[in-house]
Amino acid sequence: MSDSPAGPPTFLAALKPAVEDELGRRLALEGAPENLARAIQYAVLGGGKRLRPVMALSACRMVSGHIEPALPAAAAVEMIHAYSLVHDDLPCMDDDDMRRGRPTTHRVFGEAGAVLAGDALQALAFECLVDSPVSGADVARMVGVLAGAAGPRGMVGGQALDIEGAATEAAELDEMHAHKTGALFRAAVLLGGIAGGASGALLDDLERYARAFGLVFQISDDLLDVSGDPRKTGRYRGSDADLGRRTYPGVLGVAASRDRMDALVAEGLSVLAPYGDGASDLAELLEFAARRDA
Amino acid sequence: MSDSPAGPPTFLAALKPAVEDELGRRLALEGAPENLARAIQYAVLGGGKRLRPVMALSACRMVSGHIEPALPAAAAVEMIHAYSLVHDDLPCMDDDDMRRGRPTTHRVFGEAGAVLAGDALQALAFECLVDSPVSGADVARMVGVLAGAAGPRGMVGGQALDIEGAATEAAELDEMHAHKTGALFRAAVLLGGIAGGASGALLDDLERYARAFGLVFQISDDLLDVSGDPRKTGRYRGSDADLGRRTYPGVLGVAASRDRMDALVAEGLSVLAPYGDGASDLAELLEFAARRDA
Repeated sequence: MSDSPAGPPTFLAALKPAVEDELGRRLALEGAPENLARAIQYAVLGGGKRLRPVMALSACRMVSGHIEPALPAAAAVEMIHAYSLVHDDLPCMDDDDMRRGRPTTHRVFGEAGAVLAGDALQALAFECLVDSPVSGADVARMVGVLAGAAGPRGMVGGQALDIEGAATEAAELDEMHAHKTGALFRAAVLLGGIAGGASGALLDDLERYARAFGLVFQISDDLLDVSGDPRKTGRYRGSDADLGRRTYPGVLGVAASRDRMDALVAEGLSVLAPYGDGASDLAELLEFAARRDA
Repeated sequence: MSDSPAGPPTFLAALKPAVEDELGRRLALEGAPENLARAIQYAVLGGGKRLRPVMALSACRMVSGHIEPALPAAAAVEMIHAYSLVHDDLPCMDDDDMRRGRPTTHRVFGEAGAVLAGDALQALAFECLVDSPVSGADVARMVGVLAGAAGPRGMVGGQALDIEGAATEAAELDEMHAHKTGALFRAAVLLGGIAGGASGALLDDLERYARAFGLVFQISDDLLDVSGDPRKTGRYRGSDADLGRRTYPGVLGVAASRDRMDALVAEGLSVLAPYGDGASDLAELLEFAARRDA
C-alpha cells in the first residue's frame, strides 16, 4: 500500500447520492413539530463523509451484488452517528461550537432542541430497520446488532469511558475506541451483510474486517492530529494532547502507531482476499481510512 | 364510577414485582462502564408506579391469559419512559432537582452522565424487544410501534411542543399530550397485545382504549394540580399555572374537564366491555387513572 495521502475512493462519491436521497426522504418528517424537524434535518443533512452508510452498502453489495437492500440500514447507522455527534457537542459534554464548518446543532436550536433532536434520531434509526426488505427474523437480528452497538456496551459506553479519561495504555485505548467508534463501524458492516443475506462464516469475516477497520480509522485519526495538514484536518497539530486526550502516538509513539496501523490494514485485507473483486470496495475503504489526509 | 380517590388496584401491586425483576435482570449491565451502569440503574430502579409496563402485561394477559410473553416489552416501555424523565429533568429542559423524592439523575451523576444514561436506555429498550418470545415478523412490528411512539411524531415530538408552549385550545392540548404521554401508553398496550398474539380488530380496540386512557391520565393529572392534596401529590396547588403550563382546567374549566374525563372513561370501558372479565385489569387501570390521588 502507498504511504502518500489520498482522497476518498471514487465509489464512495458514487454511493453518496443514494445515501443522501435515502436520508432526505426519511427525514421529511411530515406531521412532526416543525422546529424539531428542522433541528433533525440540520443535524443529519449538513454534510459528512457518509463513511458508515457507504460501508453498509458496500458490505451488502459484496454479499448480494446490490446496494438497495441495505439502504434503510445505511440511513439507520448514519442517524445513530449523527445523534451521537449532536449529543457529544453539547456544552455538558465536549462543548463544541462548530462542526463541519457550521455552528453545532445546539448553537442553532438551543440545548433542549439539540437533546430532543438527538433523542428523536435514535428512535428514527430503529424505525428505518423495520423497512429493510428482509425477513422478520433478519429485521430482529438487525435491531439487536444496532441496539448493541449504540448502547452501554457499545458507542455510549465508549463515550462514557472517554469522558472519564481513564485510558493510559494501548489496551485501554483499544477498548475505549472499540466501543466509541468501532461498535458503529461493526454495526454498519454487519447490517449491510445481513441485508444482503449473509450469515455464518461470511458474517464472522465481515466482523473481523470491521474490527480492523475501526482501529485503523482511530489510529489514523490520532496520527493526523500530530502530523496532518491543519488546512485539511481543520484542527491545529497536537490539539488532542492539549485537550488531555490519550492518543495512540501519545501512548505508543508515532512509529509504532504507524506499524500497528499497517499490520491492521494487512489483517483486514487478508480477511477480504478470499472474496476477490466483490470485496474491492471494502478493501479500498480500509486503505483510504489509513491514508486519508482529513 | 366512584368520585372518591383510591389507591392503585391490587393487581397493579401484584404485577410490579415481575416488572422489577425483569428490569433488574436486564440492567445488571455486565461489561458496561461502571459509572454509566450505576447512572442507568439509578434512573430506572428508583421506584415509580410502573403503570406502562403493568399496562403491557395486562394487555398481554387479556389476549393470551399470560403475562410472560410481554415481560421484555414491559421493560422496554419503562426504559423509554425512564430515559425521557432523565432528559426532561436536565437543566436545559425542565431543570428539576428532585424526582420521586430523590435527587434527579444529573444531580447525582452530572449532566453528561445523565445525557448518556438516557441515550443508553433508549438503545437498551429496543434490545429488549428482540428477546420477545414471538415471531421475527412480530418483533419487527413491535420495533415499529415503539420507535414510532418514542420518536418525533410521538413522545419526543410532544416534548418539543410542550417546550414551545404553543397550545392554547383543548384540541392543541390534546395533540400535545397525545404525543407526549399518550404515545407511550398506546405503545405499552399495543406491545402487550402483540406479545400476546393479538392482531386485527383486537389491536384496534386496544388502541382505542389506549387513546382514551392517555387523555384520562393527563386530565386527571391536571385536575390533581388544582385540587389534589399537596401532601400526596408532592406539589403545591396551582404549580402548573405558576410555571406557565397550559392545562385542561385552565383551558376548559374544572367542571368541563371532569365531564370530559368521565366521558373518556365511559368510552374506554365500552371498548373493553365485549371482552368481559379478561379485560378487567385494563378497566381497573382506567378507573384508577381517573380517581388517583397522586
